Parts: sequence; structure tokens; C-alpha cells
Amino acid sequence: MLQSPTQTDAVIIGAGPVGLFQVFELGLLEIKAHVIDSLPEAGGQCIELYPDKPIYDIPAIPVCTGRELTTNLLKQIEPFGAQFHLGQEVTQLEKQSDGRFLINTSKGNHFLSKTVFIAGGVGAFQPRTLKLDGIEAFEGKQVFYSVKHPDQFNGKKIVICGGGDAALDWALHFADKAASVTLIHRRDDFKAAPASIAKMRELCKNKQMQLLIGQVTSYEVENDQITKIVVTDIDGQDQKMAVDDLLIFFGLSPKLGPIADWGLDIDRKQVTVDTEKFQTSIPGIYAVGDINVYPGKKKLILSGFHEAALAAFAAAAYLNPEKPIQLQYTTTSPKLHKVLGVSPPTFE
Amino acid sequence: MLQSPTQTDAVIIGAGPVGLFQVFELGLLEIKAHVIDSLPEAGGQCIELYPDKPIYDIPAIPVCTGRELTTNLLKQIEPFGAQFHLGQEVTQLEKQSDGRFLINTSKGNHFLSKTVFIAGGVGAFQPRTLKLDGIEAFEGKQVFYSVKHPDQFNGKKIVICGGGDAALDWALHFADKAASVTLIHRRDDFKAAPASIAKMRELCKNKQMQLLIGQVTSYEVENDQITKIVVTDIDGQDQKMAVDDLLIFFGLSPKLGPIADWGLDIDRKQVTVDTEKFQTSIPGIYAVGDINVYPGKKKLILSGFHEAALAAFAAAAYLNPEKPIQLQYTTTSPKLHKVLGVSPPTFE
Repeated sequence: MLQSPTQTDAVIIGAGPVGLFQVFELGLLEIKAHVIDSLPEAGGQCIELYPDKPIYDIPAIPVCTGRELTTNLLKQIEPFGAQFHLGQEVTQLEKQSDGRFLINTSKGNHFLSKTVFIAGGVGAFQPRTLKLDGIEAFEGKQVFYSVKHPDQFNGKKIVICGGGDAALDWALHFADKAASVTLIHRRDDFKAAPASIAKMRELCKNKQMQLLIGQVTSYEVENDQITKIVVTDIDGQDQKMAVDDLLIFFGLSPKLGPIADWGLDIDRKQVTVDTEKFQTSIPGIYAVGDINVYPGKKKLILSGFHEAALAAFAAAAYLNPEKPIQLQYTTTSPKLHKVLGVSPPTFE
Repeated sequence: MLQSPTQTDAVIIGAGPVGLFQVFELGLLEIKAHVIDSLPEAGGQCIELYPDKPIYDIPAIPVCTGRELTTNLLKQIEPFGAQFHLGQEVTQLEKQSDGRFLINTSKGNHFLSKTVFIAGGVGAFQPRTLKLDGIEAFEGKQVFYSVKHPDQFNGKKIVICGGGDAALDWALHFADKAASVTLIHRRDDFKAAPASIAKMRELCKNKQMQLLIGQVTSYEVENDQITKIVVTDIDGQDQKMAVDDLLIFFGLSPKLGPIADWGLDIDRKQVTVDTEKFQTSIPGIYAVGDINVYPGKKKLILSGFHEAALAAFAAAAYLNPEKPIQLQYTTTSPKLHKVLGVSPPTFE
């Protein structure tokens, strides 16, 4: 039986910086939000792609890392008690006869929300796949993009593809558990912790695993099973090897995913919005940040912040058409101080 | 003889937070700017109206004061070496036959600029005036809104109006220099340093000055000179007193001022712009921050930041129509790192 849906005024899809600031702007207008993200933690690209790299163009912050930006935004939205639903994608969004939107996630959560804010960045992050004809048929059987049950690979001939931390970590993990471990990377240059790289080289030297520089270019199937793969090196030389399982760690790549199926006007993989409300072609659904497009659009975090503010005001008017909304300032408004849970010093 | 005008690509009118961030966004696109402001220091309203009050809605800054915001913005724009021309208003802006704009300031500075960014906030700050029929005729003779030559008031019967620091400070200053000092304020409640208030009360007790609670409601003129004023108290009782000079400190109030005469489309004292370029009705002139208006406009600092970014891109295209501008990211672009003068850590 389906769990009965959570009823709410606002669902934000995406917990990147703009999705987080959307919580803040809605909060100032006393609208509570639920936030859904496919990644296991908040921060979006800032955390996934550049947690430790400096960002210089956030106004009034001469420099900060992606992680610091996220931490500060999380601190800023604390007063508003948004509920986060992480590690799950929105699989379905459907307008109901009462005007609300039914939202389902890949973890079986359901929401009935009056408004939706798509802050999906460049899309939901998904693993980059091995590009070989017909290989999809073996996904979850012999081809894996993540490891859920490590023990299933013990005693197997495994091939691990990739040059980052995930590839190295699993190669080291299975070195003394699998029948054989072959690490395949397109060049002899790894983006991983130096200690892991050193350990990998040592294991290769001791023949406890092997490293091949090249790419998997084809595979052989017998009785519906992959039996061999062909690895082509930089000079075009092929090498054939027996394999039980392939673990692929090519990093994450963003996909618009199910958003494409919600009936929104889309222009080159981006959701079209107006510049007054940042509303999509469906009233009540707003799109903010890198996922939207309008004349002049630049994919800047600071633009997403502005868009989130205007979308919040538009949503407040949409939710309460009778109630005029007055712009108040956090510096002077006693009402906003109450909402923020602060009592600024009095001046008299 | 006129000093020959400074030739430049960009002049920013207004050194408030949005004007400062305009320097940054132009700087990233390698456009140098001159900044003009009527106030003696950068920061605009943040410094003039709420230097020590907390602001809560700057994205990723849970709380900061107006002064901290200004300090951080000044630090952020340091790499771009903008030239500041403070304490002077733009008195004239005129399009030249070659398409450039001639800009004159009240301190006699002249600029010939290809683009202009009006970041004038709610307008240039000017002293609030005493509202009495015909009183303008005595401005600079017997009625003063600022003190330039303090000695001219020594030995005079002076009346000081206002309840803030400026009123109190000057009252204390003249207590032993003027023939008499009368401080007039509409209520017995002062917004000034507690020590100044205490000192003022002490001087009143010692009859070295006097305090009247009420308002100046009329004045008498003899031989083209103000001789007496009438002070009306809260109960409507009038009191007449002899006076030589009036010093008025009612605070600053913003005025659109000469901007109204530049031929720009204006809607209820605000400059109309599009939301793609934030360009005014005159190509090459942009308006950003509280002074502009467009559908959905909210007078938020964060909106001004976004507007400054898009206006900068528009100006870059206007200045170099042949040269396509690519959006680059401060996190990853070596070109922007060079412009910013930073060398971020390398990751491999």
C-alpha cells in the first residue's frame, strides 16, 4: 500500500546553493519547504565537483570553497527547519485535479505540494556509463557503476575502470579478495589520493593486481554472459582478457532526467521561465538556477540567488492571491526578525 | 579653462554595494571603471543609514553589518583598481556626437565614457530641509544644513534643530563659543551617543545652553534678515525667540536629482530597464540596484548584484560588438585567475 503523501506548500527539487537559498527566501515569507536531491548530501555541484576549490564571484565573499559556501547557506537557512530528502530522485511530477502537484521519489516518498521549485542545476547527477553496444543488458549483472554488496565480487576475476578515488579504493579493497583485479585507465595519471596511488603501484609490482593503460573497446558474450573484454592501448594494440565482473567508475554526469517528461517548456535541455516570477510554462512550478533559461541568462550562482528571491515572492502571491505581500528588510523588520529567530540590538 | 576629460570605458554612478559589485563584474570582463558618489566614503545606504545594524539576507552570509558588507566588497574589488571620485555628485550627463557620454561632477571632474552604470540607489543623499515658506532665500546666509566654517558662528545667537549626533555635537561645540545656543527637537528623545546626550543635559542644567521641545513653525524678517523664530511646542503653545543663525540637522534624504534630466525613461522616480541587459532607454547607459524598475523588481541588494553581472556582460558586448564573450568561472578559468591576481591550488 502506498504511504499517504506529505502535504506541503512548497517542494524544492535540488539542494545545491540555489535550492538552499530558495529555502531562505521562502522562509522569510513564512512558507515551509521540503527539499529533494539525488545526491546523498546538500550542496549540489559545489560539493560534488569542487568542494575544496576557491570561488571568487559570490558577492561580498572575496573567496570561499564550494564546501564553505554550502556550510554558510545551511547555517543561514537553519531557522526555517526545511526537511531534506536526500539520495533520491524525483521520478514523477503530476498536476492533480485540485491544482496541487503529486511528487514521487525513487525512495518511495510522496508529496502533495501547492508549488514546486526546480533548482536542479544541470540535472541529476548520474554515473557516466561505459559506451559499448548492448552493454546496458549486463548492468547490475556483470557491469556495475557502484558497489552495494562488496562480497559478491570475492573470488571473481574483476576489471575496474577509472582513474579517480572510487576506482583506486575499490581496486585496493579487492586486491586480496578477488581471484584477480585489473585496473584499466586511459592514461597513466590518476586523480586520487597520493597514498592510494602509491599503494596501487606497490600491489602491481608485487603482482597482486595489474594496471593496464587503455580502454575497453569491445567484449565477447557466451551463453548470455560476458566472458572476455578487449582492451585497446594508446598505440591501438588490442589485448583480450577473461573477466567475470566489470566495475566502472567514470565519475558522475548530470542528466535532465525525468524533468523532461513533466510537460514543461524546454529549450535545449533548459526550462524556460519569465524574468518576473521565474515561473515555468506550468503555473505554480518555478525554475531557478542553472536549469532555467531566459533572455540574458548566465549560469552564475548569484543569478540563481536573485531568481530564488523573485520566485519566492511570486509563489507567495500564488499561494495567497488575496494577501498583498510587502517587501520587508531583514535589517529593520521586527516580523522578519521573529521569523529568523534573531533579536538585533536596539538603537535609540 | 576646463580640465580635459578623463577618457574611460565605464563610469559607475554610485558607490553603494551594487556599484561596488559592478566594479567586480566589469573587472572580470577586463573593463576598468571610475566610480563617482555624492557621499564622502564608499558603501552608500549601508554606511550612511545602517553601518552597525545586522543584515541577514545576503546569500551565504548568515549575518553581517552594513559596514562589514562594504568592507568585504571593497576587498573583493581590490584587484581591479577602480578609481573613486567621492564627495561629488554627477551634475551633467550628455551624449556626444561620437556616442560617448560626457559626465561632469560638482567638484569639476569631467569624464568621457563609452558606457555608464547608474547604481544610484534611491538617489543622491541630500540634507532634509526646514519646510517653511521662503526659507530657501536664507540658505547659506542664516540657514545652514552643514557647517563649513565653524568660526562664523562664534558670538552669535544660534538655534540648532535636530536630535541626532550632528545636532548634539555642534550644540556642544558652540556652547561656550556662541552668544547663545538653543537646541530644538520635536521630542525629548535623542538618537545620539549617550555621552553627548548626558553632556547636553548637564549644559542645559548649568544654563550654558537651552533645550526646547517643539518645532520651528514660522520666522520674522526685518531688512531682509531673519530676526526671530516661532517655536511651537507639543501642546500648540508658541514661543518667540531672537536668532542670528539656524543650523538644521534633520538627516539626509535621497533625491533622484539631476538623473531626472538625462532623458532616460523614468517610472515613478525609477529608471526603467529591460531584464536582459538592465539597459535604460539610452543604449550604453545601464541602471542597476534600487534605482531601476522592471516587472517583478524587488529592492534587494542581492537583486542588484545579479543586475550588475548581466549589465556587465551586456556592456562588454556593447563595447566590443565583434568579440563574443564566453562565460567563464572564477573557480576554473586561468584567465579569470590572472585578472583576479590569484593562483588557486592545483589539483591533480
